[in-house]
Amino acid sequence: MSTLLWQKPGVTVDAQIQRFLAADDVQLDREFFLYDIGASLAHAQGLQQIGILSADELTAITRELAQLAEDFRAGVFVLDARYEDGHSAIEARLTERLGDAGRKIHTGRSRNDQILVATRLWLKEKLACLGARLREIAGVALARADAEQALPMPGYTHLQRAVVSSAGMWWAGWAEAFIDDAVRARDTLAWIDANPLGTAAGYGVNLPLARDHTTHALGFARLQINPVYAQLSRGKFELAALEALGSVTLDLRRIAWDLSLFTSAEFGFVALPAQYTTGSSIMPNKRNPDVIELMRATHASVAAARTEIEQLLSLPSGYHRDLQASKGAIVHGFGRGLAALDLLPALLANLEWREDRLRAAIDSGMYATDVAVEAAIAGVPFREAYRTAAEQVDNAGQGRTPEGSLAARTSPGAAAELRLDVLRARWQALPE
Amino acid sequence: MSTLLWQKPGVTVDAQIQRFLAADDVQLDREFFLYDIGASLAHAQGLQQIGILSADELTAITRELAQLAEDFRAGVFVLDARYEDGHSAIEARLTERLGDAGRKIHTGRSRNDQILVATRLWLKEKLACLGARLREIAGVALARADAEQALPMPGYTHLQRAVVSSAGMWWAGWAEAFIDDAVRARDTLAWIDANPLGTAAGYGVNLPLARDHTTHALGFARLQINPVYAQLSRGKFELAALEALGSVTLDLRRIAWDLSLFTSAEFGFVALPAQYTTGSSIMPNKRNPDVIELMRATHASVAAARTEIEQLLSLPSGYHRDLQASKGAIVHGFGRGLAALDLLPALLANLEWREDRLRAAIDSGMYATDVAVEAAIAGVPFREAYRTAAEQVDNAGQGRTPEGSLAARTSPGAAAELRLDVLRARWQALPE
Amino acid sequence: MSTLLWQKPGVTVDAQIQRFLAADDVQLDREFFLYDIGASLAHAQGLQQIGILSADELTAITRELAQLAEDFRAGVFVLDARYEDGHSAIEARLTERLGDAGRKIHTGRSRNDQILVATRLWLKEKLACLGARLREIAGVALARADAEQALPMPGYTHLQRAVVSSAGMWWAGWAEAFIDDAVRARDTLAWIDANPLGTAAGYGVNLPLARDHTTHALGFARLQINPVYAQLSRGKFELAALEALGSVTLDLRRIAWDLSLFTSAEFGFVALPAQYTTGSSIMPNKRNPDVIELMRATHASVAAARTEIEQLLSLPSGYHRDLQASKGAIVHGFGRGLAALDLLPALLANLEWREDRLRAAIDSGMYATDVAVEAAIAGVPFREAYRTAAEQVDNAGQGRTPEGSLAARTSPGAAAELRLDVLRARWQALPE
Amino acid sequence: MSTLLWQKPGVTVDAQIQRFLAADDVQLDREFFLYDIGASLAHAQGLQQIGILSADELTAITRELAQLAEDFRAGVFVLDARYEDGHSAIEARLTERLGDAGRKIHTGRSRNDQILVATRLWLKEKLACLGARLREIAGVALARADAEQALPMPGYTHLQRAVVSSAGMWWAGWAEAFIDDAVRARDTLAWIDANPLGTAAGYGVNLPLARDHTTHALGFARLQINPVYAQLSRGKFELAALEALGSVTLDLRRIAWDLSLFTSAEFGFVALPAQYTTGSSIMPNKRNPDVIELMRATHASVAAARTEIEQLLSLPSGYHRDLQASKGAIVHGFGRGLAALDLLPALLANLEWREDRLRAAIDSGMYATDVAVEAAIAGVPFREAYRTAAEQVDNAGQGRTPEGSLAARTSPGAAAELRLDVLRARWQALPE
Repeated sequence: MSTLLWQKPGVTVDAQIQRFLAADDVQLDREFFLYDIGASLAHAQGLQQIGILSADELTAITRELAQLAEDFRAGVFVLDARYEDGHSAIEARLTERLGDAGRKIHTGRSRNDQILVATRLWLKEKLACLGARLREIAGVALARADAEQALPMPGYTHLQRAVVSSAGMWWAGWAEAFIDDAVRARDTLAWIDANPLGTAAGYGVNLPLARDHTTHALGFARLQINPVYAQLSRGKFELAALEALGSVTLDLRRIAWDLSLFTSAEFGFVALPAQYTTGSSIMPNKRNPDVIELMRATHASVAAARTEIEQLLSLPSGYHRDLQASKGAIVHGFGRGLAALDLLPALLANLEWREDRLRAAIDSGMYATDVAVEAAIAGVPFREAYRTAAEQVDNAGQGRTPEGSLAARTSPGAAAELRLDVLRARWQALPE
Repeated sequence: MSTLLWQKPGVTVDAQIQRFLAADDVQLDREFFLYDIGASLAHAQGLQQIGILSADELTAITRELAQLAEDFRAGVFVLDARYEDGHSAIEARLTERLGDAGRKIHTGRSRNDQILVATRLWLKEKLACLGARLREIAGVALARADAEQALPMPGYTHLQRAVVSSAGMWWAGWAEAFIDDAVRARDTLAWIDANPLGTAAGYGVNLPLARDHTTHALGFARLQINPVYAQLSRGKFELAALEALGSVTLDLRRIAWDLSLFTSAEFGFVALPAQYTTGSSIMPNKRNPDVIELMRATHASVAAARTEIEQLLSLPSGYHRDLQASKGAIVHGFGRGLAALDLLPALLANLEWREDRLRAAIDSGMYATDVAVEAAIAGVPFREAYRTAAEQVDNAGQGRTPEGSLAARTSPGAAAELRLDVLRARWQALPE
Repeated sequence: MSTLLWQKPGVTVDAQIQRFLAADDVQLDREFFLYDIGASLAHAQGLQQIGILSADELTAITRELAQLAEDFRAGVFVLDARYEDGHSAIEARLTERLGDAGRKIHTGRSRNDQILVATRLWLKEKLACLGARLREIAGVALARADAEQALPMPGYTHLQRAVVSSAGMWWAGWAEAFIDDAVRARDTLAWIDANPLGTAAGYGVNLPLARDHTTHALGFARLQINPVYAQLSRGKFELAALEALGSVTLDLRRIAWDLSLFTSAEFGFVALPAQYTTGSSIMPNKRNPDVIELMRATHASVAAARTEIEQLLSLPSGYHRDLQASKGAIVHGFGRGLAALDLLPALLANLEWREDRLRAAIDSGMYATDVAVEAAIAGVPFREAYRTAAEQVDNAGQGRTPEGSLAARTSPGAAAELRLDVLRARWQALPE
Repeated sequence: MSTLLWQKPGVTVDAQIQRFLAADDVQLDREFFLYDIGASLAHAQGLQQIGILSADELTAITRELAQLAEDFRAGVFVLDARYEDGHSAIEARLTERLGDAGRKIHTGRSRNDQILVATRLWLKEKLACLGARLREIAGVALARADAEQALPMPGYTHLQRAVVSSAGMWWAGWAEAFIDDAVRARDTLAWIDANPLGTAAGYGVNLPLARDHTTHALGFARLQINPVYAQLSRGKFELAALEALGSVTLDLRRIAWDLSLFTSAEFGFVALPAQYTTGSSIMPNKRNPDVIELMRATHASVAAARTEIEQLLSLPSGYHRDLQASKGAIVHGFGRGLAALDLLPALLANLEWREDRLRAAIDSGMYATDVAVEAAIAGVPFREAYRTAAEQVDNAGQGRTPEGSLAARTSPGAAAELRLDVLRARWQALPE
């Protein structure tokens, strides 16, 4: 390990303790490194504005940061255990290349606000990706809802056959779910879109830092004003982002459950393209829908990430090293979450209904509600109509077809009035 | 128990099983009963618009629902185990009083959308309360930030003395925290502000229900269009509301931690009015800050509520009885959360700083960062200035005062530039 | 509210604050009241042994505590908001009836060890109930495993049909699961079986309390020796008990999932007695397996209880009021958990298989593993045999029957060698 | 990627999907690889016993498995993305080296029982390590309790000064805590000590596998009999192991909280050796107790691991791919947990009390309980003695010393009767 930034003469460093302190920190910092470099540039510009750096020093730093980013992307520069963390690595590199200009980069900043700004930018990017993916998923669902309005499908409650439904209703339901999720991703991005850079160790600094400049330069919507709050937001904003993701992965868990059932032999409603399945090491007959199952499992990882952060946040104000553990959590949660969602558009676009099985699962009793409501329309009090229909439930389907049932389903949102135009308008309004 | 709505001849009801099914459901429904009555009125209006109810029947139902609400509020009507749930109670009462008009009230609706709309209205109300309380709390913090800008206070990181800070910075930090939380409460309210009434059991119904009317009548911002999605949103929207609350109770946990330390003899920064403390049953000397500790504990209940719902949501689409458990969870979480927040404005307004103790806790080393930055301003590269200051850390405070340190803290957001005007503008923009 | 035990002259009590502090504490104490009375008796005996109480005083206290218990059980004495908590109620009642003898009961004890011992006894009782219920459940499963060894059943992996299985294997699997759970309940009971009474507020007291006596009198297996640890065990032991319960409710969640699928029309493997189902308020055709769904939901409540306690336990040593919230959590978790398990023996004993549906779900491919293994027995390397079988998977069942497949399943634990005798011996060894 | 074990002609493999399915699976399998090799050897021995392998084939396989283990340990064989997982790698290597003998290794087993047995062995090893570490930690605490019985220390409740305590009581409290934790680790190890090998895909196999041999050869205490249950125990046993670890890390969180406070300037009770602290990048004056803070944070990772598994376990019986995510969780949880505990013995052994600060924090009111109890001994009813003492709380310490208070603390477990001999006997009984 290279010299520690803060190391003082006479303090012995114990290797086992240093390994415990380091853990996988510097590896994790690879995720945030380019954001850290970007924020370092904005900080340097600010330092030049207030006279800490000369124009030449800024030029040199700008060049070297760009070079470092390029080297990092190309694998020429490897962020590894030679450095305590990514922050130290940047200062070390600039100092090695530029001497005193490098030694000046940390003026007025702390690793506390440095990691805050890097993770903030990273979270914004992830939420933007999440939103874009949700828009894509909802787009597929909307298109299939439109195309499959006429395809009958059994509707279940309590996993029991309930009433006639349609593929159109099912798709439109998921479309609305993912549109709402996209709105939440957008709102959450806006909520965390505040610049913590320039709050130093949590109490500001005796320099008129150009925070309005860095806010603008880094594309933040507003300044996170108070340094005490900047520290209080560590973990808090990470949680909000994971909760927005969790809202999606809970929906994903439910659609994966649908598909897990639908691809079973017993339901048999859906045929899954072969590339989404795997075989068994012992049973020659198996084709298993592993992709769907891993999608269903994804929320567990997001929930774990949220737990890992929430459990830390029982602390007084001010920075505490405990908060370090939040980095691994967001990388794990968003890593798993986005990987699963990346596959979903194609999976949804490619799954095929088996119409014969869908129709075969619609039994006579599923028309009983139609019967009771028709009687109610004819003037029989509903509770009475219900009891009559219950007595004749086996005949409910006589002379009825799924098509007929769907055509009469005129309550807004239902099969005969899906209001896809309204959903489409909401979808259009999502950020691309 | 009165006759079950759905009971059919020949089905034996087992008392132990019925108790298990009922649990505390009907007691919980007391929380939602007035909302259920309100939504029933809107539903009845809609039924009249589409010809299911006559104008006279609507008038009678309107009168009886108002009477029921009044009787419930006055304790004349008690919602208890005579009813399977609040929904059944409403239909039973209308039927008892009005005969066939009562038997018609359930036309085109299910208990599934009935509980959805009642809990949705309840959640909206709770989020509005939460927002209002946060505005009040942030208002107290802003006022004290303004008044106490000049009061020095030690600033900590890692619970170690770090740099000079001020009460003004501390208050402004909490103000910004609670303003952000209020924004999130507002956004969350907007996100869930969608009308599920008229989606029946999750597949709509063969009636052109006046859903646009009920949306308007019940004050919803938009229609929750798709019936499949209405069911999928059960639990999902509850979670979002609890997460918005949890963001607040996590901040509450951290401010309570500050106050727990500050009221200890060792810190001794804060004197708490006696009414916020309790005594011991065995130790005559004790005055314990129980209110603060129970505030700190509050997040545990909110997290528990969230867990209780999240664990349920591993289900295929469609209604499942599992979802019933979500009712108790939101009542518990919001009950505890809002009770704690209700006390916070007065607690914050009344706590008194002990200035002598605050000043005594500012030691010489806490000026070392000022020293290093001053050298950096004078042209010494910061890393070098840092090392020099580290060698002379015991002399860092020579000739320095807390006031001097604070006056020089000019980075935006810090003591010399709190930007309270910006925070106040954000606060003003919150819904009252 | 009656006078507070610790109230001092000149301290104003604020009603809203007192309500917040009290919450539902005294109501919850009803759960623990009889244990508190029992422990009070043991404590009084100990005080008499060390000369704090006279023999006559002990006699009087013994009589009054017995009377209080009787009055409480009979509903003559109601523990309500007149008292700060159950502990205060006991002292108040004894003082009211006995004067100075009552004023002596709290000598050498604190409410801190009083609630510890009461909840400890309560938890022991609940774990014993849990163990007894598990023994009963496993007994049903064992009996049915024995009776239904010959009943073929499809075996699934990934919810896809995999190999032939039997009802005997399924039941024996659950039997082993619940036997293991019973062992854990027993181990957990033994682990927490330590007496905290006599540790006062967490630092002992200047009296040679007869702790060995109270340990014996209350039926504890050992003394919880250290007072600091007694306080540290608050929440820790509650968590262990909830985790032992959670192991059961997770198994319950999985068997409920099996039954939820098996009672669907698509699987149709199980017919559920009508009393375990409910109807719909709108759909006349429905019979829903609500009991099974609420069993599946039970773990959510146990997990919530665990969360509520775990989130509290980020504290230094010593008592903190935060820990109060653990009482409601265990009442909620064990209340829901045991209520669900109480219904399980009869449900399992009464469910009926639909043999035609079980047999119909066994398709030809499910014999492919048998085919491959037979080839392996004949000397073909398994990986080669596997590939050959995979190519001829559609013919795998030719000339084969479920009975033949099961008869050949000779690996220990499998259908032809269930080893029920070993399971039965483990079951016999469980505490009754 | 090498050929997939189960790959069939005509099935296209999609690279993105394969990456999603693989995730970090094969990397994780490095943790389990040596256990997988060991279990493969036992399986091969069993196959030879039932005639599937010849003696020569077994000899060759034994040799090659030993070689593979050696190559893996030496880094000559790298388990990476060339393989689908560790299981496939073993079969591929044996086949490559031995031809048909390798193709026979998978006879009668599935990757399902292969991963079960490997993780089971791994968990046993981790729990044994945990137990050993706890024994060591409790040993340090016991030794210091013995040595520091006479060192006074303030005792707190609600973080308020309560009564005089001693370092001896504090250490003995932690000793008892960690002894209990060690007992739980031992019980948990015994609970999961059951052999799942030979249950194949969850339904056994048509071969009389030598499961009693493998149970003995792998050192398991018992056979996990039923194949359905073997699958049901996936995750269940992992959770139990993590919960046993979590009991420890919750105690660790609380002792870390104590030390975090004790090392603050305000308490100042403890001096931490310099190697346990770090510096700041901006504040030259800082020495931060990061090691303690990361210890406090450790439970968050264990809780996250538990969440990640618990969230998966809402499934019907039988294997599901969801369960794969449990591997990463246990590696993360035990990795973090044991790393923190590894440092604890030396940290506890090396921390130094600052006696002057401990004594200075004992104020006069802390003798008030002594005063009240003395009056009770003299015959004054305790509640009356309490009120009198409360009125004179400021004089409570007159003529009293910490030593005197501790010498009179004669309740069993308290300062004057720590009962270290009993604790030491419990400690001796722990497995080494």
